[in-house]
Amino acid sequence: MCRWQAYSGNPIRLEELLFKAKHSLIDQSMSSRSAETPTNGDGFGLGWYGTRETPGLFRSIRPAWNDFNLRDLAAQIESPLFLAHVRATSLATVQETNCHPFRHGKWLFVHNGEIFEVEKIRQQLLMRIAPEVFSNILGTTDSEVLFHLALTFGLEQDPLGALERMAGLVESVARAHGTPESLWMTLGLSDGKTVYAVRYASDGQAPTLYYSKAVEDLIELGLDPQAGKMLGPRARMIVSEPIGKLASGWITVPQASALRLHAGEIEVMPFRPTVPERARLVPS
Amino acid sequence: MCRWQAYSGNPIRLEELLFKAKHSLIDQSMSSRSAETPTNGDGFGLGWYGTRETPGLFRSIRPAWNDFNLRDLAAQIESPLFLAHVRATSLATVQETNCHPFRHGKWLFVHNGEIFEVEKIRQQLLMRIAPEVFSNILGTTDSEVLFHLALTFGLEQDPLGALERMAGLVESVARAHGTPESLWMTLGLSDGKTVYAVRYASDGQAPTLYYSKAVEDLIELGLDPQAGKMLGPRARMIVSEPIGKLASGWITVPQASALRLHAGEIEVMPFRPTVPERARLVPS
Amino acid sequence: MCRWQAYSGNPIRLEELLFKAKHSLIDQSMSSRSAETPTNGDGFGLGWYGTRETPGLFRSIRPAWNDFNLRDLAAQIESPLFLAHVRATSLATVQETNCHPFRHGKWLFVHNGEIFEVEKIRQQLLMRIAPEVFSNILGTTDSEVLFHLALTFGLEQDPLGALERMAGLVESVARAHGTPESLWMTLGLSDGKTVYAVRYASDGQAPTLYYSKAVEDLIELGLDPQAGKMLGPRARMIVSEPIGKLASGWITVPQASALRLHAGEIEVMPFRPTVPERARLVPS
Amino acid sequence: MCRWQAYSGNPIRLEELLFKAKHSLIDQSMSSRSAETPTNGDGFGLGWYGTRETPGLFRSIRPAWNDFNLRDLAAQIESPLFLAHVRATSLATVQETNCHPFRHGKWLFVHNGEIFEVEKIRQQLLMRIAPEVFSNILGTTDSEVLFHLALTFGLEQDPLGALERMAGLVESVARAHGTPESLWMTLGLSDGKTVYAVRYASDGQAPTLYYSKAVEDLIELGLDPQAGKMLGPRARMIVSEPIGKLASGWITVPQASALRLHAGEIEVMPFRPTVPERARLVPS
Repeated sequence: MCRWQAYSGNPIRLEELLFKAKHSLIDQSMSSRSAETPTNGDGFGLGWYGTRETPGLFRSIRPAWNDFNLRDLAAQIESPLFLAHVRATSLATVQETNCHPFRHGKWLFVHNGEIFEVEKIRQQLLMRIAPEVFSNILGTTDSEVLFHLALTFGLEQDPLGALERMAGLVESVARAHGTPESLWMTLGLSDGKTVYAVRYASDGQAPTLYYSKAVEDLIELGLDPQAGKMLGPRARMIVSEPIGKLASGWITVPQASALRLHAGEIEVMPFRPTVPERARLVPS
Repeated sequence: MCRWQAYSGNPIRLEELLFKAKHSLIDQSMSSRSAETPTNGDGFGLGWYGTRETPGLFRSIRPAWNDFNLRDLAAQIESPLFLAHVRATSLATVQETNCHPFRHGKWLFVHNGEIFEVEKIRQQLLMRIAPEVFSNILGTTDSEVLFHLALTFGLEQDPLGALERMAGLVESVARAHGTPESLWMTLGLSDGKTVYAVRYASDGQAPTLYYSKAVEDLIELGLDPQAGKMLGPRARMIVSEPIGKLASGWITVPQASALRLHAGEIEVMPFRPTVPERARLVPS
Repeated sequence: MCRWQAYSGNPIRLEELLFKAKHSLIDQSMSSRSAETPTNGDGFGLGWYGTRETPGLFRSIRPAWNDFNLRDLAAQIESPLFLAHVRATSLATVQETNCHPFRHGKWLFVHNGEIFEVEKIRQQLLMRIAPEVFSNILGTTDSEVLFHLALTFGLEQDPLGALERMAGLVESVARAHGTPESLWMTLGLSDGKTVYAVRYASDGQAPTLYYSKAVEDLIELGLDPQAGKMLGPRARMIVSEPIGKLASGWITVPQASALRLHAGEIEVMPFRPTVPERARLVPS
Repeated sequence: MCRWQAYSGNPIRLEELLFKAKHSLIDQSMSSRSAETPTNGDGFGLGWYGTRETPGLFRSIRPAWNDFNLRDLAAQIESPLFLAHVRATSLATVQETNCHPFRHGKWLFVHNGEIFEVEKIRQQLLMRIAPEVFSNILGTTDSEVLFHLALTFGLEQDPLGALERMAGLVESVARAHGTPESLWMTLGLSDGKTVYAVRYASDGQAPTLYYSKAVEDLIELGLDPQAGKMLGPRARMIVSEPIGKLASGWITVPQASALRLHAGEIEVMPFRPTVPERARLVPS
């Protein structure tokens, strides 16, 4: 279990959300509300869009709560769209390349969850990844495999469709190896303009995911208007756990749903895994 | 707040206590019973006596729970006497030189606690450290300052007396700077033959400290006789928090007490800070 | 021995100088032209001025040549004034707090060189640091001590005068402890508007230091006019070793000199250590 | 290019060879004699056999020359058989799981060299690894792939034969992808009793590899008899570069050769890659 956060809105200094907000993601790195993994101290990562198409990436194996560099960067960097992630793992090694977000060109990807009994099917899944993107894999997490499967299945052209095909493939391969309910996840994805998110589990019990109400509604609910001005009228957040003081400002993403956030507008739609027609195998 | 552990007994593989025991120190790095700082993820350290007079030292800024090297070393290294420490800090930087144990020649030192408002008196305390040991200071913790003050006041000749003079000096300097109750600590110390421990706070509310009953008593209380044989008849532990399953196997160290453990025998005596006659100042 | 670089000019992406330039500082981290320490792999640091008065700081113990985060940050961060440093040490511990630049408020400080037999006088020097700035010391390098002595002697009001008083004090304390020629250094310093630099050694043999000619002169000497446009008409660099292809574009800073760079103008003046009138001692 | 060393002989403290010897492996981490990569600062690793069948492993991303933990462990750990490795990479990420030795059960494996254009065939090679050992892969180096291919081809039953099959497979897959000369390597391997080494390149120009003469011969050539006594009559070393002062004490391993070291006896034989009969592909 991990915790993540996506922001889209006015350019703001990252520290405003990562450090200054109540129960921020950095707070969650030490004490999240998850009963199973309150501690998310196995590294963290930050991906942000600046003045280039390619986003910046800062990842570290240290707990987010004690990393001075993170504090400094969050105080300096301003961005209109960023993803941040704090990690808890008992499986894959703690190393920078296993920290989220993962990046491919202009795309960033974060993941919370797991593939059940992944050790049975990991090699099978790697074989389905397109050779063109395979060498972009730098670490050893299941999360990075999911991302590169989605890239294989057309993520750059049809993000949510590709995520559905990725999920369909994983479930299908897992079933063939005796694991009927394999996926348990939330996902975050962006190309710098639009943010996509998914909440899905094979057994219908995916981890929590929330998005924030529109800023004007938040102000009505009690958000400091100055804070609202800083965030801007189109600001939105998607989070594993609500941050800030306004409990009523968050909407739960339903199970088996995908979410598309663009220019402050959020569209929620069903997420339905589909087995890709040609579950590509690398030719030998 | 931190957590530490000292062991003296038959040579054993460190993993037996550090990893395999129930609620081991490594478990405590992620979830100790301390209400204030359940997470002790700001680095760890291990000091052990092997075949040389100088003990070995392995310290890392990673949380103890996710360090593969620690796991491996604990599986290989056998020792009849070792100290281990997991750290939680909101003050001093997380770096290897700030991880306990600290070492001077054959001596190892661990500390849990703090000096209140240390920023007011840190420079004053550094000035009292003997120039002969000053260059042995590699980090920036108050703990290391306490150790080197004690070295200055004769720790190598009279360990407990030197710790009392150290405590007296710190309290006296703090009082002079307006802090009436400055010390709040448990200490562990060894030269490879004897283990010393202290539980003391200026306000009488020092953190918890326990020592284990004699192995024959533990067996009577339910300890697996095989485990007892492995530890040996003279094995003893001193810990911030009880480990293992035998809640009844631990004796609380009283407030304001010092403890001397040698060849399986434990002597408990009062700990009374005394202002050193000559609170040495470095001549300019 | 270390290597450092200061830049002042048009806002540029840091990678332009740190990575893309020929024989850049990152190249120097692996193979500088220094005969004694070609490898500067004991950590690095970057301090840059952005949209806040307080500069950003990114420091790491990894060799600069293999740090992915540095590469990414240098590709994203733009700045009109930054200092960068790669470190080689056989003395002080390799930890982030020992990496340059050091920061105090809006000030950044880098150092190359050493204090001879510093172990004899380190405690003495620490005692002369003003209590107001003492708690800003996070590491254990001599460099950080030099910076805080200069802060003690008025660096924020009179930067070069304070550096002269710092140098005078160090030489005077060292002489009193039997070291006639103690200082051997180059220094870089900035408040975000002006860059100061010093080349000085007690024996007149300080390490190399260079500054770049005016951009219009560089273009005449062969600099690509596009590069000149990017840097801007007032761009200047101060470096331990020339970078780029234009060997003729660099002017050697004379021994025992200080340099003041503001708005593209460089003033070179003598650097004369002076023993401060009141070589302050912390009152006990 | 990397540098490695294997030792078999009397149990000795690792520091005797790793730190105290002239031009030791730790010296080579900063300045090896390789013209292309004099600096091997991208991490290091140490694998040693102690009192268990499974060897200990200590790996770090820091340059070997500045790691305090390595220095301490080398001063404490005694072993009759160990492998050590310092790394230089421009390809795979610097992370602990990419540091050598790699381990599988009681086996340790080190590698110096590369697979030309490995990005073309990496996924193909991963597909040939037996599912039973696939989940033992923790990092992303080609070296670890080579090791697990050899495990797939029977390394535990027939070490040198499996290495020949591994080499044959890699060359065959590379040729099929347009790379006629793909392998360039030295390998070290041990099960705790026997050490195996290989020097091989597809183009006949493999990196250097040496083994030491028998200790009685070394003493005749000038080795300090005390050192000889410490190492024992059956001590032998295999190294990328000679260490110590006795240039005449080393024998060059011929190109395309394998070496078997057991109980002080060294057997040199040809190394002939063979395409495995059943170049196993993971069934889908």
